[in-house]
Parts: sequence; structure tokens; C-alpha cells
Amino acid sequence: MIIEGKQYRTVWMEGETIFTINQLLLPDKFEILQLTDYHQVARAIRTMVVRGAPAIGGMGAYGLAQAIAGMDSVDWNRIDEIRDILLATRPTAHDLRHGLDFIVEQIQQVSDLQEMKKMAMEAAEEYADVSATACQRIGELGDDLIKSGNRLLTHCNAGALATIDYGTALAPMRMAHYSGKEIFVYVDETRPRLQGAALTAWELGQEGIDHVVIADNAAGYFMWNGEIDMVITGADRIAANGDAANKIGTYEKAVVARENSIPFYIAAPKSTIDFNCPSGRDIPIEERVESEVLQVKGVSVAADGSPARNPAFDVTPAEYITAIITEKGIFKPEEIHQLQK
Amino acid sequence: MIIEGKQYRTVWMEGETIFTINQLLLPDKFEILQLTDYHQVARAIRTMVVRGAPAIGGMGAYGLAQAIAGMDSVDWNRIDEIRDILLATRPTAHDLRHGLDFIVEQIQQVSDLQEMKKMAMEAAEEYADVSATACQRIGELGDDLIKSGNRLLTHCNAGALATIDYGTALAPMRMAHYSGKEIFVYVDETRPRLQGAALTAWELGQEGIDHVVIADNAAGYFMWNGEIDMVITGADRIAANGDAANKIGTYEKAVVARENSIPFYIAAPKSTIDFNCPSGRDIPIEERVESEVLQVKGVSVAADGSPARNPAFDVTPAEYITAIITEKGIFKPEEIHQLQK
Repeated sequence: MIIEGKQYRTVWMEGETIFTINQLLLPDKFEILQLTDYHQVARAIRTMVVRGAPAIGGMGAYGLAQAIAGMDSVDWNRIDEIRDILLATRPTAHDLRHGLDFIVEQIQQVSDLQEMKKMAMEAAEEYADVSATACQRIGELGDDLIKSGNRLLTHCNAGALATIDYGTALAPMRMAHYSGKEIFVYVDETRPRLQGAALTAWELGQEGIDHVVIADNAAGYFMWNGEIDMVITGADRIAANGDAANKIGTYEKAVVARENSIPFYIAAPKSTIDFNCPSGRDIPIEERVESEVLQVKGVSVAADGSPARNPAFDVTPAEYITAIITEKGIFKPEEIHQLQK
Repeated sequence: MIIEGKQYRTVWMEGETIFTINQLLLPDKFEILQLTDYHQVARAIRTMVVRGAPAIGGMGAYGLAQAIAGMDSVDWNRIDEIRDILLATRPTAHDLRHGLDFIVEQIQQVSDLQEMKKMAMEAAEEYADVSATACQRIGELGDDLIKSGNRLLTHCNAGALATIDYGTALAPMRMAHYSGKEIFVYVDETRPRLQGAALTAWELGQEGIDHVVIADNAAGYFMWNGEIDMVITGADRIAANGDAANKIGTYEKAVVARENSIPFYIAAPKSTIDFNCPSGRDIPIEERVESEVLQVKGVSVAADGSPARNPAFDVTPAEYITAIITEKGIFKPEEIHQLQK
């Protein structure tokens, strides 16, 4: 992605140092963080310095490779332990498991420490490259669905910042814009953490794509009023039956889209699909701290003493999803089993 | 309503001074404002010091009566002009027109200035009393729909603060609580202005009613997860066909409620019904300033330079409304024409 005229990825590695854009400071401040051990990596995922399923997958792969590179001996108990610590940072995103498992698979036949370190580092780079290329391909395939003049709605940030590069939901919009189509994007602000207002609007602004920020509550109004032609969101985990977990609020948008005969697309790499998870009811939904609801940027917005509940994700049943845009093609939810090898 | 152990109405008059709770400072500070002329009344409505359709109706009635009480002669051009200025403060709420017209109707046969002043002041008191009693009755009728153990969802603030007293959507919950039923209320925070988090949570806290604040995005998740038994919201205007305009986001909740077979009720006095308005498509939807979306309590939450759109209301078509709870009885949307005299 282009930021202030320069090319960036969301997560990358130089030597044994992991670099990432600090998404907690955006859009107010653009800052690159350096992470030098797996404790820092785990904290970066848990506190949402880095967020978005594919980006977390890449961060997990880099984090495990970094930990292995720092080892004094081949210690599989230790590798498993660090893998589990990193996996526990966010329970809903399936890409995280995918990224960690990719590193483990690449090195599991290796017994020499130096060779293992080298292979782990190469595997992390390969994972990131494959992930970025997948998002680029999602963009190309999704671009075909978009006509010039279309007005799109997106929820949360499924942009380049949520991936290694390009984004998932935003990749088709990027490609449509690059190919000269005129598009207009309605950006749900996405309470409680406001990733839409803070990150998606910032990315679209950097790319020069016309957009407007709206309260999450307003999406239904614009659909009812005939102002939205298509909805595209990302996903944190897709179950084998096509149900998709994504940022809290996605479910409401999908239901209201169907009610207004507006196509609702999920854009996600194959790594987001959990073929071991039969349905959306089996996806664990992370509940985060009350303060994310009760405060905005540290300012209290609720009545003193009122408690909050804060589920971070919801499940959109397959019946509301028009199709899932993957790097392998565009599939109806009931067709994604074709992607299982 | 009880606030800090004392009985209050949202709007009242002593002599020729109008008193109202400053809702812009809640829940951080409880302050009573005094309004001494119609400019102050218009500003209080426009800036949402007072908000909620029935409360605005009462404020309009008091404001026009106050202006008439201050006149040096019977000047119908001036009365019409002040009526129009007050009516223009908020375009969506029908109660505002109802409150203003009630005063005009009571005095229109009167030619003596002193008699007109006296009648206008009495009419405003009558309007406020009738409005408060209507809400009390809505509470009693709505209470019959609630079973002990029910978990309810509400959107925005349709509480005592949105009316002269008791509330509309919150009136049945108040009455259920008073009658010893155990209820639990999910409170949508209601971006952009957060009336749910700030006002509804505060009112429920004052009454000791169990509740939790949630992001607007989370309502669908709790419905899908079987945690909500009933939705009750207020309305700002109900069209003759039963379509209801209410706070932005209400439409999404109603659609998702029906999809989950959860009853969705509108609670509103008859004065909210506009029999001259054939359908929801004919209700004007107020769009407010961008800063309500781009900032929270003065703190910027969106990317610098990103624009916003801010419709304050949306329309819930009658097909999603289980019934409308009025002071005259509980009606299906297609039955409300029975209320027209």
C-alpha cells in the first residue's frame, strides 16, 4: 500500500526484527514499531497494534520464526509452547492458526538447529508473500463484480492494514479505482474500536478513493434509500458450511442487505476458511473489555456505573452471503468445500 | 421520574419561565436550565438540550405559550411566525407540530389579550399533563406484554427524558420493574449522539433496573444468540400506514428482530401519529452536522479530511413492527387508522 507516497506492508521482517505499523495511533500518527521477541509479538496482537485476520496470520508466522531463530537448541516443547501462547492472543481469527501451523509444518522434519532457523525465517517470508499475493488476486477477481458508478458499503477495516498488503474487502475497491472505475464507499465507523472511521477512511484517503464515514446505525438507512449497490466485508473465520465470523455488526448489515436485495460479499483468502469448524455456531466469539464500549479514546461516554458487554465478532449465516471472494475464485457459501484439498 | 431521590419532569413552567433538564451535560452533570424567551426555546430544541418527540412537543407548547404571555397586543402574524420558527427547529418529530397546534387551537377564538395569555398558559399545562398521563398509560399497557425474566433491547433514549415524564419505550420497563418483574435491558449506545449510553443507561441506573450498554453493532449478535426476548423503541413520527420514523439504527434492529422471530414494538403516544403522512417515504429525514459522526465529545475519531453523512432518523416499514403501544391501546400498524377521529 502507498502511505505518504511510499510503499509499505503492514508487517515485515528485517534480520530478526519484526516491523509493523502501530494501528493504535492511526489516523492521528503514522508510526512503525519494532518487535524483538514473542512477548512483544503477543502483546501487539492482543492490544490490536496489529489486527485483521490475514495480518495477524502473518504476524504469527513472523513471531514464531523469530522465536525459533533466537533458540539455543532444537526444543520442540518450547516451540509448541510459544505457538500456543501466540495462538491464544485472539480466539476468533483462523488465519492466526494457519500462519503458525505453516511455520511448524515447514520445519518439522528438520533436526539441525541452524537449518531449522533458516527454514523458519524463509517460511515466514513465504507465508507473507503468499498472503499478499492472495489479497492482490482477491482484488483482481472482486474488481470484476464492480461497475463504474457503484456505491459500496464496507464494515470495519478489511484493508491493506488488516492484511500483509492490498486488503481483502478493500482490495476489489483498490483495483476498481486503479482500473479507472468511479466508485464511492460508505464506511461504517465500526464501534466500539472505530476501525472504519480511523483505518478504512484513512486508507481510502491515502488512495484518493471517494468515501464518506457513517455511524454504523446509518447503513440500513442508506440501503433502504437506494444509495448502496453492494456490500463487501472481510472475515475472521469462515466455517465449512459458509457461515462467516467477522467484526461485530457485520451480521446486521448482511441481513438488511438481503432485505433490500443488495448483494453481500465476503472477501477473504482461503486461509480464513476453517474446514474443521462445521458451522458458525462452533466459532468462538471473543468478548473484549467493557471499557472499549464505555469509553472512546479514554473519554467516558456512558452513565457512571453502567456495565457493558463487548462481543468483538458476530456470525453471518451463509444464507445472507451472496458469495465469498477468495484468491482461488468466487464461490457461493455452499461451494467452498470445493477448496478443501 | 426520580432523580437523586427527587421527583422531576423533563420540562415544566413556573410563572413565565420554562425549566428543563440540560440533556447535553448528562450523564456527567445534572443541571436545570431556565428559558425565558422563544429564541432560547428554539435553541434548546435545535441543540438537543431537550430531545425526544414527546418532550419536544411539550417544549414547543410551553415555548409558544410563553411567547404569547409576553405579548403587548393580540398579533396573529407574530403568533404564526413564532409557531413556524419553533416548528422548524426539528423537521422529523410530529409531536412538535401537535404541541404547537394545541396551543393555537385553544386560543383561536379569543380576542382579549389577557384572556389569551391565561388560556395559552393553561393550555400548555394541560398539554404537558395529558402527555405525561399518556406515557404513564403506555407503561401500564406495555407492562402486560412483559414477563418476569424477559430480556429487552431498546435503542436511543425513549425514556422519561424524551417525554414530559415516564417515557415511551422505557415506560413499560419502568412499570414492569415497579410491579416486581425481573427484567434485563440491553441498551444500544446509539451513535452518533450516544443517547442510549448517556441517557437511557443513566435513567435505568437511577431506577435500579438491571441493564448493560452495548455497541449498536452488537444488538444483532445478542438476538442471534437467543439473548433478547423483545425489542421496544420509541418513534418520532408514525405515518398513517404504520411506518415509523425513529432514531437512526432503529430500522436495522427491527429487520434483524423479525429475522430472529423477536417481537418488535414501537411505544408512542397518539400525538406521534401523523395521519396526513401516507407512508414512511413521505417523512422528512433530518441530516445533522458531520461533526457528530467525526467526533465524540469533541475528540476526533475519524481520519483527517474524511467527510461524513449523518441522517438522524430512519424509517421502519410497518411490516417489521409487531405492534404499536399507545395510550389508547396496543394496535397492529395496519390498525392505527382506528385512532383517527
